[in-house]
Amino acid sequence: MLSVGIDLGGTNIKAALIHREKGILKQISVSTDADSGLEATLDRLGQIAIEVSAEAQDDITGVGIGAPGMISLDRKSVQNPPNLPGWDVVPLADEITKRTGMKCLVENDANLMALGSARFGSGRPYDNFVMITLGTGVGGGIIIDNRIFRGATGAAGELGHVSIDYKGAQCNSTVPGAIEAYLGQRFLSKRAADEIEKNPESDLYKKFSGDFSKLEPLDLTEAANHGDQLAVDILADAGRLLGYAIVNYAHVLDVRKFVISGGVAKAGDLILKPAFAAAMERLMPPFRTDFEIIPELLGNEAALLGAGTLALENL
Amino acid sequence: MLSVGIDLGGTNIKAALIHREKGILKQISVSTDADSGLEATLDRLGQIAIEVSAEAQDDITGVGIGAPGMISLDRKSVQNPPNLPGWDVVPLADEITKRTGMKCLVENDANLMALGSARFGSGRPYDNFVMITLGTGVGGGIIIDNRIFRGATGAAGELGHVSIDYKGAQCNSTVPGAIEAYLGQRFLSKRAADEIEKNPESDLYKKFSGDFSKLEPLDLTEAANHGDQLAVDILADAGRLLGYAIVNYAHVLDVRKFVISGGVAKAGDLILKPAFAAAMERLMPPFRTDFEIIPELLGNEAALLGAGTLALENL
Repeated sequence: MLSVGIDLGGTNIKAALIHREKGILKQISVSTDADSGLEATLDRLGQIAIEVSAEAQDDITGVGIGAPGMISLDRKSVQNPPNLPGWDVVPLADEITKRTGMKCLVENDANLMALGSARFGSGRPYDNFVMITLGTGVGGGIIIDNRIFRGATGAAGELGHVSIDYKGAQCNSTVPGAIEAYLGQRFLSKRAADEIEKNPESDLYKKFSGDFSKLEPLDLTEAANHGDQLAVDILADAGRLLGYAIVNYAHVLDVRKFVISGGVAKAGDLILKPAFAAAMERLMPPFRTDFEIIPELLGNEAALLGAGTLALENL
Repeated sequence: MLSVGIDLGGTNIKAALIHREKGILKQISVSTDADSGLEATLDRLGQIAIEVSAEAQDDITGVGIGAPGMISLDRKSVQNPPNLPGWDVVPLADEITKRTGMKCLVENDANLMALGSARFGSGRPYDNFVMITLGTGVGGGIIIDNRIFRGATGAAGELGHVSIDYKGAQCNSTVPGAIEAYLGQRFLSKRAADEIEKNPESDLYKKFSGDFSKLEPLDLTEAANHGDQLAVDILADAGRLLGYAIVNYAHVLDVRKFVISGGVAKAGDLILKPAFAAAMERLMPPFRTDFEIIPELLGNEAALLGAGTLALENL
């Protein structure tokens, strides 16, 4: 049995033909062109769903879509997705069915990354794990008993907005000290720039000639891999703070496996090892048993695989 | 159908005959006498179970026991319960069955308070809520889809050990800034004493003549109810910190209802109103919908009712 998995982003729409065991059979991408308006984007979503499944029409269970923002509990509509202007409350699943004749479900994109990881990625061996996505923002998806944990209204897993310091730094969260304020790409870059600015002798200072507006976490990773101690320290510090947030998630959920994905996660052990050490130090002793922090290697494909899985398992 | 609910504490063992609709039909209590050793305490548990159910023997589904500490995933054994010296890993359910002929299940006492609240208390109207117990320690139980949420190994809901400040105060938790370090009875009393000590003009200072070793949260509540502004401020401050912890729980779990019980909760609105205001200020906007903090009025009976319910619904 096959399905269509779609990843609806503010910049691109990606669609894939998904096989339950083989994963992605075919993948295409188009520009979201969000400024063209809601109807045009919906049409584009319908077209790409039909296009990617054209040769397999009879075997398609349906379409799963990963979208940013709040998803209704019935997985039919999307509310105020960021980066999609003019989308208020959109009955996305019905609109796609209308345009394609295929059944459709929608889910939060971070939740679908977790589901993709559970079926095709690092989360595969585990019935219970938390996926943390370290990208522009910090997001998450929670897998309990091998399924997405959705909470009371479908919005569970807003992990980036869990605070580790109630008097702490403010990001674009309502919560001071939210972990996103330390590990979100822009905030990590800003914190790094502040550190580097104090160290004019450092390689990174010289590389950016004192203008750090273009510094990205990847620059830190590269510098650290070339032995720059300041970069190592900045990433280790970020890792420790991630570890503290993970302790909070673990003590609420009693989940022992944490799978990390997203651009910032490319720092790998430079972040994950300090995160593990910091968490092990602060977890209550029983929660240290089987505790692991694991990188997700699937990248953005996890969301497509999760979207396809959503359709395969629920339609 | 009836069951036996038992609340196993370090000081007392309470047992009740529980009816699914009518709740507690009969209740007895004996001293735990933990120093007499494991076997003697097990015998006492067996005796009290038989005694409380003597007149209804034919209608008993089984025995549910609420115990402190870690409970195994199969709800059969207890691990290192605090205040019960000599209890390492105890196959409590089987030991009770051996002594009484009745089937038995064990669950964490805070989880059973949540279950008791769900069936007989303030949690009754809600399919999803979090119970926070503010007592000597801060504990919790999570109800999702009308059942106890247990996590990967049965230890979910260690809410007192969620940190709101990674550089914060240390209690008997492994986690600096754990909410228990602010709201646990002893820690709240200590923080209050420190404040009062700075205010020798305050009524509380005069009442305790400068020796605050006996000050308890109840003294704060009494003073606040008599118009003592310092006491009002101390409790409001504690409430705000509780609100920040609740934001963390809410953003992970997407639960909108928080039911508060335990001795410190007797401060009522003096703590709960500031907690609500602080949480509403920091919750992400969608999480403010239907958000409520509600007192539990059942008191310790919630644990007995939950223990009885555990047996009624699972044996």
